[in-house]
Amino acid sequence: MKASELAKVLGGTLEGKDVELVACGGLEEARAGDLSFCKDPKHVKLVESTKASAVLLPKDWDHGAPCSVIRVKDPNDACMKAAEIFAPPAPVRAPGIHPTAVVDPTAKLGKDVHVGPWTVIEKNAVIGDGCVIEAQVFVGESCTVGKNCHFYPQVTLREGTVVGKDCILHCGVRLGGDGYGYTTSVGLTGIKIEKIPQLGIVELGDGVEIGSNTTIDRARIGRTYVGPMTKIDNLVQIGHNVKIAGYSGIIAQAGVAGSTQIGKGCLIWAQAGISGHIKIADGVQVGPQAGVPQSLDGSLKYVIGCPAESMKDFGGRVLLPKMVAKLKAEVKELKAQLAAK
Amino acid sequence: MKASELAKVLGGTLEGKDVELVACGGLEEARAGDLSFCKDPKHVKLVESTKASAVLLPKDWDHGAPCSVIRVKDPNDACMKAAEIFAPPAPVRAPGIHPTAVVDPTAKLGKDVHVGPWTVIEKNAVIGDGCVIEAQVFVGESCTVGKNCHFYPQVTLREGTVVGKDCILHCGVRLGGDGYGYTTSVGLTGIKIEKIPQLGIVELGDGVEIGSNTTIDRARIGRTYVGPMTKIDNLVQIGHNVKIAGYSGIIAQAGVAGSTQIGKGCLIWAQAGISGHIKIADGVQVGPQAGVPQSLDGSLKYVIGCPAESMKDFGGRVLLPKMVAKLKAEVKELKAQLAAK
Amino acid sequence: MKASELAKVLGGTLEGKDVELVACGGLEEARAGDLSFCKDPKHVKLVESTKASAVLLPKDWDHGAPCSVIRVKDPNDACMKAAEIFAPPAPVRAPGIHPTAVVDPTAKLGKDVHVGPWTVIEKNAVIGDGCVIEAQVFVGESCTVGKNCHFYPQVTLREGTVVGKDCILHCGVRLGGDGYGYTTSVGLTGIKIEKIPQLGIVELGDGVEIGSNTTIDRARIGRTYVGPMTKIDNLVQIGHNVKIAGYSGIIAQAGVAGSTQIGKGCLIWAQAGISGHIKIADGVQVGPQAGVPQSLDGSLKYVIGCPAESMKDFGGRVLLPKMVAKLKAEVKELKAQLAAK
Repeated sequence: MKASELAKVLGGTLEGKDVELVACGGLEEARAGDLSFCKDPKHVKLVESTKASAVLLPKDWDHGAPCSVIRVKDPNDACMKAAEIFAPPAPVRAPGIHPTAVVDPTAKLGKDVHVGPWTVIEKNAVIGDGCVIEAQVFVGESCTVGKNCHFYPQVTLREGTVVGKDCILHCGVRLGGDGYGYTTSVGLTGIKIEKIPQLGIVELGDGVEIGSNTTIDRARIGRTYVGPMTKIDNLVQIGHNVKIAGYSGIIAQAGVAGSTQIGKGCLIWAQAGISGHIKIADGVQVGPQAGVPQSLDGSLKYVIGCPAESMKDFGGRVLLPKMVAKLKAEVKELKAQLAAK
Repeated sequence: MKASELAKVLGGTLEGKDVELVACGGLEEARAGDLSFCKDPKHVKLVESTKASAVLLPKDWDHGAPCSVIRVKDPNDACMKAAEIFAPPAPVRAPGIHPTAVVDPTAKLGKDVHVGPWTVIEKNAVIGDGCVIEAQVFVGESCTVGKNCHFYPQVTLREGTVVGKDCILHCGVRLGGDGYGYTTSVGLTGIKIEKIPQLGIVELGDGVEIGSNTTIDRARIGRTYVGPMTKIDNLVQIGHNVKIAGYSGIIAQAGVAGSTQIGKGCLIWAQAGISGHIKIADGVQVGPQAGVPQSLDGSLKYVIGCPAESMKDFGGRVLLPKMVAKLKAEVKELKAQLAAK
Repeated sequence: MKASELAKVLGGTLEGKDVELVACGGLEEARAGDLSFCKDPKHVKLVESTKASAVLLPKDWDHGAPCSVIRVKDPNDACMKAAEIFAPPAPVRAPGIHPTAVVDPTAKLGKDVHVGPWTVIEKNAVIGDGCVIEAQVFVGESCTVGKNCHFYPQVTLREGTVVGKDCILHCGVRLGGDGYGYTTSVGLTGIKIEKIPQLGIVELGDGVEIGSNTTIDRARIGRTYVGPMTKIDNLVQIGHNVKIAGYSGIIAQAGVAGSTQIGKGCLIWAQAGISGHIKIADGVQVGPQAGVPQSLDGSLKYVIGCPAESMKDFGGRVLLPKMVAKLKAEVKELKAQLAAK
C-alpha cells in the first residue's frame, strides 16, 4: 500500500516520498517496506537509525526522521490500525463441508459449519452451529463441540471429548490421549507392567483457547476438566484428571501432573511444573520454571524456584553466595582476633 | 443410565431417587449426573457436601448422604466397574482399509489390519497382523511394524522405522526425524554450517507405549533404541542414538540428549533433562525437573536438582538459607563476645 | 550385505566368516548382524566383548576379535561409508502433485515441485522451484516458500507465513499459530478476558531447519523472525515477535518468550527458558535448563542456572553446602576457644 493512501486512511499527513509499505515493525527491527512508529522524543536515536521506509510520528515531532513521515495524532493507535490493514487476510471459512471430508452419517453438524479438506468426523459426534473445523482435523466418536468453535488444521480429539462454545484449538492440539498409568508387579517370570484403562474424557468449558501442540489427557475415570475462559499456550502438558476451575492462564511448556486442581484466576508461567494430586488456590501465580511439589493455599500469591517458595525467599537464596563469602571473611577475621588475644 | 439399573449391575441396593447417571467423579469434583463413592467414614464431610447425584457407600455406612445412595460391598471396586460402564465406547476399528487410504502396492499388510481414512503407507512398509492404524497416519518407506500395534491419528513414522509388537503410539508421535547435528566451520566467506547426514533409524521393542506429540530422532548411524515395555509420556524428546534398555518409564516433557544410555527399570520424572553421551544405571530414578550432567552408576537410586544430587544433599541445599541465617547470628554473637573480652 | 562385498567396497580385507551385515553400531550396542569399528587398542576390551557380527579394525591391529574382521586403513572413515550403505533408502520424492492433494488453482507452484498425498495448499500460496512438500502438509493462504525447501509430513503453515530457500521443516512443525495475548479487565459482571488479535506473520530466513513438533507463533504485529542458517531442534517454543538474527542454534525443549531478540551465532541449550522483551547479544550460549530473566550484553559468553549466571558463579553456588558446613565447624571451634579463654 502506498504511504499516501495509508496516511489518508489513518487521518494523517505524509511528508517525504510516497513509498510502498508492506508491514509494521518496531523501530529497531523494521526494514525497507516497513512502517514504524514513535510517540516519545526520548527514542529519537532509534528513529534516526531506523531502517523503516516510513514512520508514524506525532504532529509536534521536531527531530526529523531518515525516511518518509506520516504525522498523526496518536502514533501507537495509528500503528495498530495500520497493522490490521497489513495483516494477511483472515482466510474465509465459508459454511460447507469439503467434498474430501469424511463425515460419518450419524454425526450431527449444526448450522453454518465449515469442515475443511481431509477432516474426519466420526460416529455420533455433534458439532455446534457456526463451528469452523479446518483441514486434516480428527474428531473422534461421540465428541461434542459447542457453538462457534474454531479448530485449526491437524487438531485431534479422541472419542468422547466435550468442548464448550467459543473455544479455539490451534494446530496439533491433542485432546483425550490416554493418561500415563500402569501397574507394575514382579512375577515369577520377571517384571510385569500393565496398562491401567483410561476410561474418562476431556471436557473444556466455554471460551477456552489452547495453543499449538499442547496435549491434554483423558481422565482415568470421570473428566479432565479445563474451566471456562482458561487460556493455554503452546506445548503444555495437562495430565489425567486435572481440574482447572477457569479464568486461568498456563504459559508455554508448563506441565500439570495428574489429578491436580487449579483454582480460578491462576497464572502458571512458562516451563513451570506442578506435581500431581495437589491443589493450587484461586489467584495464585507460579513463576517460570518453578517446581511445585505441594499444595498452595493462597497465602503466597506468587511462588518461584524449585521447590517453589516466595519471591522473598527465592531472592534470599539467589544472594546466598555473597552472604556466605561475607561470613567467611568475618570468621577469618574472628580467628585472627582470637589468636591475637 | 438409571441409578436402579446401575445398582443391579453392581450388585447393590438403591436408596433415594432413581436418578439418571452419566459419569463417575471424586466427591469434590462430582456434579449433577455424576456417581461418586466413599469407603471411609473419615470423609463424611466430603460426602455431605458433594454435588454428585448418587454416591456408592458401604453397607454399614450410617452417616447419610445429600443424594441418592447405592450401597455396595466395596465402593471403590464398584466405582471402577461403573466407570467402565460410563466410559465412551471404545471405537470399533474393524479390519479393512479405508477407501481413502493411500497404501503403496509394495507394502505388506498382515491379517486383520485396520487402516483409517487419509492414512499413507509407503513403499515396502510391513504392517503386522491385527494392527490398528487410525486416520491420517504416515508410515514411511520400509518401515516395519509388529503385530497388534495401535497407532492413533496423525502419528508419523519416517522411513526405515522399526516398531515391535503390541506397541501403542498416541496422536502426534514423531518417530525418525533427523537428529540435531551440524558441523560449523569458519571459512573465508563467513560461518559455514553443514548438516550431518542422519543415516540411522528408530527401533522400538515390544510393548512400548508413547504419549501424544513425543518425538524420537533417528540415529546418526545405527539405531536409536527404545527397549521393550518402556512407557513414554507426552511431549518427551529422545535424541539420536539414545539407547533405553527396557522396562523404563519417562514422564511428560522430559528430555534425553543424544547417545545417552538408560538402563532397565529406570524412571525419569517429568521435565527432567539428561545430558548426551552418558549412562544411567539400571533402576535409577531421576526426579522431576532434575538436570543430569554426568553418568549415574547406580550408587544413588534417586537423584534430584540441577546438577542432580541425592535427595539428602538436595534437602540440605533447600535448607541452606536457614543454616546461613543461623551462622550469621552466631558470628555476630561471637564478635560481641570477643569485643567484650 | 555380505561382509565380503562390503570389504570390497571399503577397500579392506575380510578375515573370518562371510557374515550378512545389516547395520552399523558402536562396540557396546552392536548386536548380531551389525558392523562395528575400533581404531584405538585402548578399547580392546570392548572389542573382545562386542556382539557385532563383524568389526572394522586397522591393518596393524594384533589383539584379535570375537567375530569377523574387516581390516581397513581408517576404521572410523570406513564405518561412515558403511553407514551410508546401510542407511534406509532416502525416499524418492519425484516432481509432481499427488492426485489426492488439494491445491488451490490460485496457488503458484515452481518447477519440479513434489506435493504428497492429502496435502492442502491454499489460495495465493507460492511454492518455489524444487520444493518437496510431503504428505498431509497444510500450507495456508498467501504463504511464500523459497526454492528447494523440504517439508516432512504433517507440517502446518498458517496464512501469510514466509519461508526462505533451502529450509527443512520436520514432522509436526507449527508455524504461525496465534501468540499468547489477552487483555484482562474486571467489569460489573466479572472478569473479562479478551483475545488480542495476532495480526503479523512468521518469517524464516534461508537455510533454516526446524525439528519435529516445534512451534513458532505469528507476530502480534509485524514478523516473528528466524534468521538464516538458524537450526532449531524438536519441541522448541518461539513466542510472538521474537527476532533471531541468524546462524544460531536452539536445542530441544527450549523456549523463547515474546519479543525477545537473539543475536547471531548464539546457542541456546536444551530446556533453557528465555524471558520476553530482552536481548541476547551475539555469540552468547545459554546452558541447559538455564532461566534467563534479563538481557545478556555479551560480557558473559556462557550462562547457566536460574536465574542465569556465569559458570564460575554457578559452580560456586553448587559448592555452597560444603562451604557452609566448613563455616559451621569453624564457628563451633571459635565458640569453644572463646569459652576456654
